[in-house]
Amino acid sequence: MNSSQIGLYGLGVMGQNLALNLEDNGFSVSVFNRKAPGEETIVQEFIENEGKGKNFYGAESIKSFFESLKTPRKILIMVKAGKPVDHVLSNFLSYLERGDIIIDGGNSHYKDTMRRKEELKKIGVRYVGMGVSGGEQGARFGPSLMPGGTPGTWPEIQPFFEKIAAKAFDGSPCCKWVGEDGAGHFVKMVHNGIEYADMQLISEAYHILKESLGLEAVEIGKIFESWNDRSLNSYLIEITSKIFMVSDDDGLPLVEKILDCAAQKGTGRWTAIEAFENNVALPGISQAVIARFFSNLIEIRDEFSKTQRPILKASANKEKLIGNLEKTLLACRLAAYAEGFFMISSVSDEFEWNINYSAIAKIWQGGCIIRSALLKEIEQAFQKEPDLKHLILFDEFSEQLSDLQASWRSVVGHAVYSGIPVPCMSAYLSLYDTLRSKSLPANLIQAQRDFFGAHTYERIDKPRGQFFHTDWENQ
Amino acid sequence: MNSSQIGLYGLGVMGQNLALNLEDNGFSVSVFNRKAPGEETIVQEFIENEGKGKNFYGAESIKSFFESLKTPRKILIMVKAGKPVDHVLSNFLSYLERGDIIIDGGNSHYKDTMRRKEELKKIGVRYVGMGVSGGEQGARFGPSLMPGGTPGTWPEIQPFFEKIAAKAFDGSPCCKWVGEDGAGHFVKMVHNGIEYADMQLISEAYHILKESLGLEAVEIGKIFESWNDRSLNSYLIEITSKIFMVSDDDGLPLVEKILDCAAQKGTGRWTAIEAFENNVALPGISQAVIARFFSNLIEIRDEFSKTQRPILKASANKEKLIGNLEKTLLACRLAAYAEGFFMISSVSDEFEWNINYSAIAKIWQGGCIIRSALLKEIEQAFQKEPDLKHLILFDEFSEQLSDLQASWRSVVGHAVYSGIPVPCMSAYLSLYDTLRSKSLPANLIQAQRDFFGAHTYERIDKPRGQFFHTDWENQ
Repeated sequence: MNSSQIGLYGLGVMGQNLALNLEDNGFSVSVFNRKAPGEETIVQEFIENEGKGKNFYGAESIKSFFESLKTPRKILIMVKAGKPVDHVLSNFLSYLERGDIIIDGGNSHYKDTMRRKEELKKIGVRYVGMGVSGGEQGARFGPSLMPGGTPGTWPEIQPFFEKIAAKAFDGSPCCKWVGEDGAGHFVKMVHNGIEYADMQLISEAYHILKESLGLEAVEIGKIFESWNDRSLNSYLIEITSKIFMVSDDDGLPLVEKILDCAAQKGTGRWTAIEAFENNVALPGISQAVIARFFSNLIEIRDEFSKTQRPILKASANKEKLIGNLEKTLLACRLAAYAEGFFMISSVSDEFEWNINYSAIAKIWQGGCIIRSALLKEIEQAFQKEPDLKHLILFDEFSEQLSDLQASWRSVVGHAVYSGIPVPCMSAYLSLYDTLRSKSLPANLIQAQRDFFGAHTYERIDKPRGQFFHTDWENQ
Repeated sequence: MNSSQIGLYGLGVMGQNLALNLEDNGFSVSVFNRKAPGEETIVQEFIENEGKGKNFYGAESIKSFFESLKTPRKILIMVKAGKPVDHVLSNFLSYLERGDIIIDGGNSHYKDTMRRKEELKKIGVRYVGMGVSGGEQGARFGPSLMPGGTPGTWPEIQPFFEKIAAKAFDGSPCCKWVGEDGAGHFVKMVHNGIEYADMQLISEAYHILKESLGLEAVEIGKIFESWNDRSLNSYLIEITSKIFMVSDDDGLPLVEKILDCAAQKGTGRWTAIEAFENNVALPGISQAVIARFFSNLIEIRDEFSKTQRPILKASANKEKLIGNLEKTLLACRLAAYAEGFFMISSVSDEFEWNINYSAIAKIWQGGCIIRSALLKEIEQAFQKEPDLKHLILFDEFSEQLSDLQASWRSVVGHAVYSGIPVPCMSAYLSLYDTLRSKSLPANLIQAQRDFFGAHTYERIDKPRGQFFHTDWENQ
């Protein structure tokens, strides 16, 4: 008793794989899972199969689970986000001791994590919300880990999670302390938002290659393969190239047999909602989430498509369009990371989480879905300028964007004239053109608001904070 | 005592004007306002000035306010949304009697209205959330009113609010029962969302006229004036044309002296958030809210604009571009109403509010900010097809869009090549092109999700609800 170094509660696929990963790396692990009435115990099954002959202790009760752990205990919870987490915590209450550390590795909402941290603080228990990315394979052999929570907890859990994490480009672990409070789960949420955007951008590129150039799946796959060898190098581009190579039983491309209705589990929506709640502009991620909503309006699309005149396809030079698409994806991916980091820094400032941005760019370099070559440059950007207000302001990136814009405009323009929807590519182009506009037409909006609601306005020739009203009707 | 027909709590500008409007229309009105300690009473001031010699009873306490009203009492609350409403309701508790009707005329969140309705139901009090649009002038001489709440309440409050409301094109009142529960405040919220979109679209048109054609304010004003004579006829186009005619003291156009940072009071954000919460695609309104966020990043814009190469302006034929802009605004406005109504019907279905869509199109024809000629056609569309799934599917509208699309593409394309941000115009074009796409590239997104997370997919050659998984890596 009192011998295991760490406990893992929740033996779903992710939980099992993290347990195996921890044990592989030399740690003694106690595991436990809620018993469904009448069901054979999941713990016993795990111990007798995947865990056989390894350094696991399979607990048969919460009591024995707690008793088997060295104090202060470190317990990683891997259960479904939402009520199940609260349920587990309330079951823990009578066993928890001052100084214990609970780590929630699920996709919890960061505001839930903040609430739970505060509740457990009352009894002296420390709480960490840890984003885990990389799916089942990542969990087993190297996930990207984003822990954040009660200050001072990091040194005690660092040895475990640095060991099991994926590796960044320089070989260091894709696991660093993200920040206080709900910072870990917040950063994981934004990670997923960026993932939505990157997936939508790739699918828009696919749409153009298919519709404008009439390319077959295998050829499209080869284009993605070649893109993956250059600056677009990333996990999502890589798996996309592989997807196009897979055939169905009849020899035709499997991807073309898949229904075009995209599902979602919620973290992308959360990102968009939190952006609006916090007054942060997140046009691309929002559009990516919206594009998934739209894809499900299959009856309306079917009916409406019959009523509209077909578009005369804009002409396109194949090699040129493919080259421009590559540059457009790069510009848009940069914009997607930039808006994600901007959201993180905006909210971090508000909550005083003291987030280390270059650490995040490192964490995301391995194990997770949005890992990409570009993150190396982003890490360096934040190392050079830790207080960078927006990634697009970093010299190298602003130069890149300036160079890429011609290709970007030509792709979006081509899609606009060809009737191919590019909501995410054009939202990022609008972001770019908005931020490069020294003056925007928002002065008219302020005039309108003052006209109909006497909401007042500020003037370009007066200090900020002085407000003026005009009786526009009677001038 | 027990003689006033209706009570009004809250003598801010909106409250005072609604009280005067009610009295003008022959109703006896009791008024009351919270007294700030040490302040002279607002009620007395109102009675001795604006209300002098009129059929008002100025109550000096909540008790006398309640005693002065005919039972069952009808009390209109006009206080700031949020906690003040709860505060007023809790002060009312000891005076309220079974059957009384409370009407909240502020910009309350519809979920608060739903909660309050349920709470008051316990003591037999009926609750109405009523959207009020039209600003101070509307409140005084004819607002657009959107009441919804406890079923069966309408006949008792109808005489008051139909009398004071603005008039629709056919002369009938811009006030109808919207639906049950929080329906009234929900519809008002979406109204404001559409308002954000229409204002953003107009400002994008202004940006193009100014940047691409180099037009001066007065000429731009005249263009809006001419647009207002045709199918774009609306309140917002009308006030925009007037705004451009107003000069500053130095003779220069006042609008150009206004700082380009747009403020917002929150209902647009609420609309965007509720759309994401309810899985409803709302790209244009979302982008309009985001554009206001962006306009406030004045330091980032200033710094970034210096780093980017200027764009060689795309050439433009003046008359043609102006004509195309008019058509683009019409197409986008139609899309904005369409997405607004789609959101209303989606949420109405979920909550079973039984909303009458043609009634809403009528309510919005007068008094409110988004009143426009197009609403007459929308009213007729819903009269002909009350179960229309999406406005764009209505024959006349789908024909219009098919006709307008060439101009729309040419304006968005022009802006894309000229570096003028048109986030809202291009979001609506994406909406249009998405809904006219029989097939979207979301099949690739499903393949990616299945690849990295085993999230499964549906197939085009199998019934809905059958889910498949492929081991993509090992094929």
